[in-house]
Amino acid sequence: MSSRVGVAIVGASGYAARELFRILLNHPGVAITAATSRQDEAPRVDALHPSLARRIDLVCEPFDADRIAGKADFALLALPHTASMAAVPPLRERGVKVIDLSADYRLADAQVYADWYGHAHTDARGLDEAVYGLPELFRPRIPGASLIANPGCYSSTSILALAPLIAEDLIERSGIIVDAKSGVSGGGRAPKPSFHFPECNENFSAYGVGRHRHTPEIDQVLTAVAGGKGDPVETIFTPHLVPMDRGILATVYAQPKRTAVEHDLIELYRSFYASSPFVRVVSHLPATKDSSFTNFCDITVRVVRGKILVLACLDNLVKGAAGVAVQNLNLMLGHPEETALL
Amino acid sequence: MSSRVGVAIVGASGYAARELFRILLNHPGVAITAATSRQDEAPRVDALHPSLARRIDLVCEPFDADRIAGKADFALLALPHTASMAAVPPLRERGVKVIDLSADYRLADAQVYADWYGHAHTDARGLDEAVYGLPELFRPRIPGASLIANPGCYSSTSILALAPLIAEDLIERSGIIVDAKSGVSGGGRAPKPSFHFPECNENFSAYGVGRHRHTPEIDQVLTAVAGGKGDPVETIFTPHLVPMDRGILATVYAQPKRTAVEHDLIELYRSFYASSPFVRVVSHLPATKDSSFTNFCDITVRVVRGKILVLACLDNLVKGAAGVAVQNLNLMLGHPEETALL
Amino acid sequence: MSSRVGVAIVGASGYAARELFRILLNHPGVAITAATSRQDEAPRVDALHPSLARRIDLVCEPFDADRIAGKADFALLALPHTASMAAVPPLRERGVKVIDLSADYRLADAQVYADWYGHAHTDARGLDEAVYGLPELFRPRIPGASLIANPGCYSSTSILALAPLIAEDLIERSGIIVDAKSGVSGGGRAPKPSFHFPECNENFSAYGVGRHRHTPEIDQVLTAVAGGKGDPVETIFTPHLVPMDRGILATVYAQPKRTAVEHDLIELYRSFYASSPFVRVVSHLPATKDSSFTNFCDITVRVVRGKILVLACLDNLVKGAAGVAVQNLNLMLGHPEETALL
Amino acid sequence: MSSRVGVAIVGASGYAARELFRILLNHPGVAITAATSRQDEAPRVDALHPSLARRIDLVCEPFDADRIAGKADFALLALPHTASMAAVPPLRERGVKVIDLSADYRLADAQVYADWYGHAHTDARGLDEAVYGLPELFRPRIPGASLIANPGCYSSTSILALAPLIAEDLIERSGIIVDAKSGVSGGGRAPKPSFHFPECNENFSAYGVGRHRHTPEIDQVLTAVAGGKGDPVETIFTPHLVPMDRGILATVYAQPKRTAVEHDLIELYRSFYASSPFVRVVSHLPATKDSSFTNFCDITVRVVRGKILVLACLDNLVKGAAGVAVQNLNLMLGHPEETALL
Repeated sequence: MSSRVGVAIVGASGYAARELFRILLNHPGVAITAATSRQDEAPRVDALHPSLARRIDLVCEPFDADRIAGKADFALLALPHTASMAAVPPLRERGVKVIDLSADYRLADAQVYADWYGHAHTDARGLDEAVYGLPELFRPRIPGASLIANPGCYSSTSILALAPLIAEDLIERSGIIVDAKSGVSGGGRAPKPSFHFPECNENFSAYGVGRHRHTPEIDQVLTAVAGGKGDPVETIFTPHLVPMDRGILATVYAQPKRTAVEHDLIELYRSFYASSPFVRVVSHLPATKDSSFTNFCDITVRVVRGKILVLACLDNLVKGAAGVAVQNLNLMLGHPEETALL
Repeated sequence: MSSRVGVAIVGASGYAARELFRILLNHPGVAITAATSRQDEAPRVDALHPSLARRIDLVCEPFDADRIAGKADFALLALPHTASMAAVPPLRERGVKVIDLSADYRLADAQVYADWYGHAHTDARGLDEAVYGLPELFRPRIPGASLIANPGCYSSTSILALAPLIAEDLIERSGIIVDAKSGVSGGGRAPKPSFHFPECNENFSAYGVGRHRHTPEIDQVLTAVAGGKGDPVETIFTPHLVPMDRGILATVYAQPKRTAVEHDLIELYRSFYASSPFVRVVSHLPATKDSSFTNFCDITVRVVRGKILVLACLDNLVKGAAGVAVQNLNLMLGHPEETALL
Repeated sequence: MSSRVGVAIVGASGYAARELFRILLNHPGVAITAATSRQDEAPRVDALHPSLARRIDLVCEPFDADRIAGKADFALLALPHTASMAAVPPLRERGVKVIDLSADYRLADAQVYADWYGHAHTDARGLDEAVYGLPELFRPRIPGASLIANPGCYSSTSILALAPLIAEDLIERSGIIVDAKSGVSGGGRAPKPSFHFPECNENFSAYGVGRHRHTPEIDQVLTAVAGGKGDPVETIFTPHLVPMDRGILATVYAQPKRTAVEHDLIELYRSFYASSPFVRVVSHLPATKDSSFTNFCDITVRVVRGKILVLACLDNLVKGAAGVAVQNLNLMLGHPEETALL
Repeated sequence: MSSRVGVAIVGASGYAARELFRILLNHPGVAITAATSRQDEAPRVDALHPSLARRIDLVCEPFDADRIAGKADFALLALPHTASMAAVPPLRERGVKVIDLSADYRLADAQVYADWYGHAHTDARGLDEAVYGLPELFRPRIPGASLIANPGCYSSTSILALAPLIAEDLIERSGIIVDAKSGVSGGGRAPKPSFHFPECNENFSAYGVGRHRHTPEIDQVLTAVAGGKGDPVETIFTPHLVPMDRGILATVYAQPKRTAVEHDLIELYRSFYASSPFVRVVSHLPATKDSSFTNFCDITVRVVRGKILVLACLDNLVKGAAGVAVQNLNLMLGHPEETALL
């Protein structure tokens, strides 16, 4: 155990945190040395998550940057947005590296953050230094980062679906349609009317049409992928709620700049992701269940009546949250990217 | 419309109320003339229940016994327990007949009520005059009643499963096991952690073992069915939560007093329920889905290694709540029992 | 009963047939006088559909046009495609009016049928005389029809979503995206690997991308709505499977010809469907559950980044199959359109 | 890799086989060296199980005992019953040790097998030498076994729930009620009407009442636990189907021989399973989801009105099938029991 790196899970009660525990308990180079919760009574981690009984013997403590810095080299933050940007600066000041699973450091422009999240950003330095933690696109920048903005679940799916087309400048950048569907765990663990079982079971609907906060994140990253040349990327992002626990599928429609050939596109995707162990470019239509409880993102491409369709799916709690966080952690620690993730 | 009886739905926002609206909108002898809700802004009924759009043009009002008495001859109360026993006396004083879907008038003994519900009962007169609204057992008493205690959903299922055996004194009265399973709508419409979709989906568990409040109701009614002779009925009632919207199945295990013959028992049940249009004694193993969205209770009997097994199911929101309420209303109004229920 | 019209259900074992029974049993002007099934042993209808026990006392018989003509004025056909076009001519020769729920008479052009369904069409006369049974668009033609082609479930949803925009020539006719999602009952009652519970539960995927047979049906009808002027309508139709029983939601993306204003579009839809009792133009985002077990189609419109989004949903077995069939029957019989459907 | 033991998966296409692959791919002491399937075209393992893409590069071959013996020291058989007892003798003759996940070697008495499975048993020697692979009860016998009969999923749940009570002679041996509930994956991967999504979704029912084949298995093992003294154990076993993928919960009702005290019983269970890492005796009511995708069996005990209730749950595909198979394999190989199972 002496050679293990100490990791703190900050905000231990939610679903993403539970997945972090589950994955990191099998990580040979990591020890979970602290967990924090805002709950009053210092619950044991396995009281919050009974599935972890017999797996972990740890009591949550209130957040205290000094105590965390004394126990951990890395903090993985599974906090709500705005709570994260309050916790990050004191941790970083004490030398703790941070992987933030909230939205607080994903948008490079503080004004865009304020516009979409309704709060001013309070950590300009963090915002400036944060690296967007999508290894498939930004792998070289991750090992040296001290603050990782872990991507949104819809964002990862959408960006991985579109990056090869944007990078190769094959499609029109405006009017891209991302029709996305997610399981309910994406909405978090706090009970709400729309996630009450008899409301969302046997039901399907769109929500937040034109207003979902992953929209500017997707646009920003894909515009960066485009290399700063030409117009910004503008997606029309429509999320839907699927009566299932886990999984996101994005069905993407893009207008090619020149005639698209399905076979060539699949080869492009295979080539683009050749060194990314967690993207599986498949020839069949991907199904969320095949990526559930894995860190894989499955993608295929079709051409229908001249449009390019990309279908991409992943597990929103793993590749869309905790899994990619560990993937980033592995890169920062110099471990193989797949460690604890297969 | 002039010949229709005015009915008020008191407590319009929950699932049982929604079913009352749905059923009564097709009732040829009833007009829904009022609906009440504690919500501040006087919502339209179809804002509370969008499935009823284009079906009903009615605005909820705060509860006011005078106003209700001015509009309705009957009030169907879909309130939480304790709220009902506050609303019933003023309604009855103004001549409004009441069908109460809460638990407040089901237990004849105020002390038993206090023991199980944790509140003193405040309407002794109502408790004394209330008729338990299970038509299959108490049909003759219903037309003349001015206050109906509509049965609990688990209670109806369990009582209908056991009544023929108890009435014929065929089984031991203690140690009867009722292993019951319910869909999630039985827990009501208010969001709670245990009904949060990602918690109860893909999950199955027991709850309230030995403590569920339908236990004394089942015991009291079956003891009455036994005719006051001999020992009281004592069931061991174990509820479980099934990841589905609707439906209750009770699997009942009873010790026969003498050797039981399956075929004879099925004939007994057929005979016992011959004049009850909503009990279907079937030879196959009943499935909740076949009774969903209907007012039927499906029952069969098996003998296994000397024990009698009864399997009974119904839709907890229909035959277990709103449907039987309308069945009672039909009896009170002199309509055929099936009116609006087929 | 003497004044009721006799109706035969041909192909009684599937889900659409079960819904036909359920609905027609409450129809005051109809008597179900015959049911046919290819099953060997002449099953009772309630053996095929245990939910109908106590509701119907009818035994299935093999298909025989003479016997049906002797008992029924109307035949509702819930047969697989190709089986329908074999049954329709003998029925019509004997004076039986037919509402066909299969795909056999939906495509006006026999060659298009052959291309998409892989069989030559064998009833040119029927194809010529069939009326497409979507009352919201073709109401005047239905009363006089002797053969109704009942629309596909995806088709109804998509066509109702787009008809006002096409009729008013507000959008580009090519490149219209219909991203559609359906519950599993749309796949019929025959067990298949893709509908095996552990395969489709907790799963979401697209299927039949670019190849679904409702595509030419949607295009043909919308082109007719366009009035024969200009280019044909060409949709990109992508169906997905949702882990639920019932319901279709279509998310439609269209390019307006001139700047679109959300409020004006909603008003346009309200006006377009003002005399259609089963289309509810709503301002909220519609959810399939609100239309489940009803004959309603719920629709709203949004404008996002210049594109028009239309969201439409209905119950694939009711408004998408059996319900609209009864709506057509009502029009043919001169009953109010809503009879038995509320 | 050279120090890894070669393992063959015989019958690679079902759900239990998929779980075997998933678990063994993370086993440091095992290499999957062969997989067999009766399918004609020698499918790749990841074509049968797309979730395993990028994880395994192996092609299925037809069953051939010589070839398997050339590649593997152990064979894990995930075959239907009767197919297993044909495959086991040739494998064992060639020195391959076998863990059989079918029912073929679970019942010690060939006549009981014939009575319940409808086939004569054809491998008397195997039947004689097989060890029942429930480590919690028979751990000492497993390392030296050459043929393991892997327990049925319902059987494991029921036996682990009852073993402490039987071993301590605390309950009556007849009339024990095991009311069991299982997710649908327990029914296998072959499509059948009862597992068709729209049939079992939103549905709950019992099946095989009094006739389920795990009954004699439970009785036989518990009678062995009783030590051969006194009467045989006789359970009344009632399985039910839950609309979820995974998980079994057994609610067990037993009559104590003397007054039972809840707290003492929980202590008894803790003590009984103290050296069993995969049994978690909990104080809360266990929920299947907390054991899903784990090899844990969660158990608690209650006393209600004098009866003992035991509630036990596990994942039918893991602790109920593939997980316990690997647990047995670990014991046979001398690995820690938890290897690859946490």
